[in-house]
Amino acid sequence: MQFKVRIIDIEAGRHEIALNEQEAKQLDVELMDRVKVKRLGKEVTAIVTISKKHIWNGEVEIFSETAAELNLSDGDYVEIQGTSRPQSLDFIKKKLDKQILQESEINAIISDLMQERLSDVELSVFISAIYSNGLTMEETISLTNAIYNSGDKLQFEGIAISEHGIGGVAGDRVSMLIVPIIASLGLKIPKTATRAISSASGTADCMEVLASVSFNSAGIKRIVEKTNGCIVWGGAINIATADDKLIRVRRPLRLDPESLLLSSIIAKKKAEGATHVLLDIPAGRGSKIETVEEARKLAQNFRILGAKMSLNLEVIITDGSNPVSSNIGPLLEAKTVLEELENKTHSTLSEKALLMSARILQMVRGTNLEDGYRIAKQQLFTGKAHEKFMEIIEAQNGKKIESSELQPGEFSTVIKSKKEGRVTHVNNAGISRVCRFLGAPEDKKAGLKIKVKAGESVNEEQEIVELFSSSKQKLEDAVAQFDRNNVVEIEEIIIE
Amino acid sequence: MQFKVRIIDIEAGRHEIALNEQEAKQLDVELMDRVKVKRLGKEVTAIVTISKKHIWNGEVEIFSETAAELNLSDGDYVEIQGTSRPQSLDFIKKKLDKQILQESEINAIISDLMQERLSDVELSVFISAIYSNGLTMEETISLTNAIYNSGDKLQFEGIAISEHGIGGVAGDRVSMLIVPIIASLGLKIPKTATRAISSASGTADCMEVLASVSFNSAGIKRIVEKTNGCIVWGGAINIATADDKLIRVRRPLRLDPESLLLSSIIAKKKAEGATHVLLDIPAGRGSKIETVEEARKLAQNFRILGAKMSLNLEVIITDGSNPVSSNIGPLLEAKTVLEELENKTHSTLSEKALLMSARILQMVRGTNLEDGYRIAKQQLFTGKAHEKFMEIIEAQNGKKIESSELQPGEFSTVIKSKKEGRVTHVNNAGISRVCRFLGAPEDKKAGLKIKVKAGESVNEEQEIVELFSSSKQKLEDAVAQFDRNNVVEIEEIIIE
Repeated sequence: MQFKVRIIDIEAGRHEIALNEQEAKQLDVELMDRVKVKRLGKEVTAIVTISKKHIWNGEVEIFSETAAELNLSDGDYVEIQGTSRPQSLDFIKKKLDKQILQESEINAIISDLMQERLSDVELSVFISAIYSNGLTMEETISLTNAIYNSGDKLQFEGIAISEHGIGGVAGDRVSMLIVPIIASLGLKIPKTATRAISSASGTADCMEVLASVSFNSAGIKRIVEKTNGCIVWGGAINIATADDKLIRVRRPLRLDPESLLLSSIIAKKKAEGATHVLLDIPAGRGSKIETVEEARKLAQNFRILGAKMSLNLEVIITDGSNPVSSNIGPLLEAKTVLEELENKTHSTLSEKALLMSARILQMVRGTNLEDGYRIAKQQLFTGKAHEKFMEIIEAQNGKKIESSELQPGEFSTVIKSKKEGRVTHVNNAGISRVCRFLGAPEDKKAGLKIKVKAGESVNEEQEIVELFSSSKQKLEDAVAQFDRNNVVEIEEIIIE
Repeated sequence: MQFKVRIIDIEAGRHEIALNEQEAKQLDVELMDRVKVKRLGKEVTAIVTISKKHIWNGEVEIFSETAAELNLSDGDYVEIQGTSRPQSLDFIKKKLDKQILQESEINAIISDLMQERLSDVELSVFISAIYSNGLTMEETISLTNAIYNSGDKLQFEGIAISEHGIGGVAGDRVSMLIVPIIASLGLKIPKTATRAISSASGTADCMEVLASVSFNSAGIKRIVEKTNGCIVWGGAINIATADDKLIRVRRPLRLDPESLLLSSIIAKKKAEGATHVLLDIPAGRGSKIETVEEARKLAQNFRILGAKMSLNLEVIITDGSNPVSSNIGPLLEAKTVLEELENKTHSTLSEKALLMSARILQMVRGTNLEDGYRIAKQQLFTGKAHEKFMEIIEAQNGKKIESSELQPGEFSTVIKSKKEGRVTHVNNAGISRVCRFLGAPEDKKAGLKIKVKAGESVNEEQEIVELFSSSKQKLEDAVAQFDRNNVVEIEEIIIE
């Protein structure tokens, strides 16, 4: 049937159209069914919304992304056809029926996902099924390959190292130290990082304080050829695209089945052109993985999947119960990174970076860990890593900068302890929430400094946290929300 | 935050608003999160869509149903607040984690469902979880009670009988015979029926050929007080509303977990005011329940749940492998019902109605089955049931009518057998699809007559089906689609 187009300025995040009830019946489609929309040889599959009024006969409302894809303007005509249920729905149901999926069935699901032939509620069934019934390692391998093949692939000559942490720990900016250390030793280490989802800052947000982070594949290759390293935003390149489409539904559901975590990370590393991967699993109270046992099980599955995907992969488990740095927020974290490279400070952050660099050297060059640590430390202490970092910043269109030039938000205040006691825990999740109230990560200058450490004793009225924001209002909001977020837990030493 | 309203003429089937990306971040909400929208003391919870452009700062796009609920016009101002994740999401996840839900947890889920606090993808997780992990009988009872309490409740003085088939069989209009037979015996039998979803005609569509079917609770009470019976559309009254909201997502997913089927039907019967229920489970090839064993298991669960819900409930299992009547489509089925009442014909349809009426009399009055059958037959053969049916039609604002006055669509054609052989199967699903092509159930005069029966031998060129439609085009479409729909399966008697 032919329909006259009216464009609706709503981005559904997917192809979507609205028909009136009567014509939907004529096309034999109902709410959330899919149709083919065709114009001038182009065709997309779109999900159907039904309207009981508002839409005239012969008229279709087309959401803006679909209109853009088909180059439509108001008043254009499109051909709309009902289309059969994709067969992959049977495979999704098969997983819900606790059966094992064949490689071809997983490929069919990912292929329909890529062609927008699955609605959000259907994807939600797929994720629920995987969450509840799990995937075997064979299924996980098939899924990883399907996701790997769903987007562009970067490739570097010879060895390319990737270092990745599965996240959840505040201030964990080790990549920004590891990349210059390893690159300064003549090894290729192209880092594609994420932006913050629920935390105060992702590595990409932090690097953006110093340089551009959005580059296409060619741009990344150019930077790495010149400097051996880069720290860019992975979202600007089309790798493992199917994963982004799955995350779109996983995020609101907050369902993170282990097999999806495995396939998502390994498919991305592979598509980023990595030959050698060092994975960091932070474990402990308040991080994604609560216990060391869970972390060990996950690590073992990463090792198996990595081997099956022909990656040289090592996994380390680190303490994720406390922040890695005391300064949290995009600018404050960038400032700390620079201070470490300038040898003005030497904290847990650079210690973790040195240990991880040693593991990378062991993996790639066979260096033993002690020697590797010494080599990495030398690059840091002699300023060679700093020099390399400035090279990378310049290659990413940034300017050389010193840590002292970075100043956090002009509005600040200090939080004092309400009681005397011992600090039992500094809470990653609480830190993230307070930083969001302060305006991070949009406000790069928003963030906080933690002035105490777990295990330390504090007096009443002692300063424990300093807050920064570019907005007076946001600072006040964050102060009002501070107590309920349980950032620093203090246990009274003398109870009575 | 205050926002200026722009109304978007899309019915989402739920409360939905669109914000621009930046302001969504300020409210700390993301795609598919929920917000409170307030104006003049009214408040709804709406699901968030994010737009990257098109929406100015300070502006919100509100979908038409939400605008109607809050009495909004373009340019009005509303207050929008982020709202926390409903706790029921944890209970949904608990079911996905294969745990057993408490009554209070199921109540919380249904309560959030009723307040539109759950998005479609979240509901889809709930249905997936129930499908994959099942519900215990205790959980099913809690769910049934929660659904029962989610809408209005009808109540009749004394005994009220309900007869219900779980569907899937073409031409199964027994209710339209049982209601007048039982009502003519002085028993109350208020029938709330459905419209067709994927079939040619629901009982409500068929009754609508003869009378009005949309009445509110007071209207139904008035009709039943006057005539003892009614045949109305259940969709016009607000009973077991939570079930409709679940069906909205279940339908596109085509997931029918048994526990949802049980709770849906029992909650509705209870809310319709039934004290005695006779359930018919048609079983056999091509119907919803394929085997008699499955049907027996389901029947047993219905009996347990019915008892727990204090209903006098009986279940019968009938042959669902073939259509109950040879005439399919709203008008053709109404015509057959009238012919049976007028004693012009006596077919499988009235035979099934008599047997079911006997079961009802046994349940309600303790009459033995043989006597019950004889009593019911007498009501039919003496014309008392016909008289009662005319009374009900008049009470439902219809006019007395004779079967001969009902004429199917003016465009018709006959399908002939392509070969000699034996009819092995008349396919319910195929019949429904062909009738949809003919224009049913919107075109009440569309439908078909099956001119052969399973087991019968046919010659080449013998007439097997006659098709009717009000549209020449639709008739041609249906003829073109006839063969692939496998309506009548004929096996050659001599193979070589």
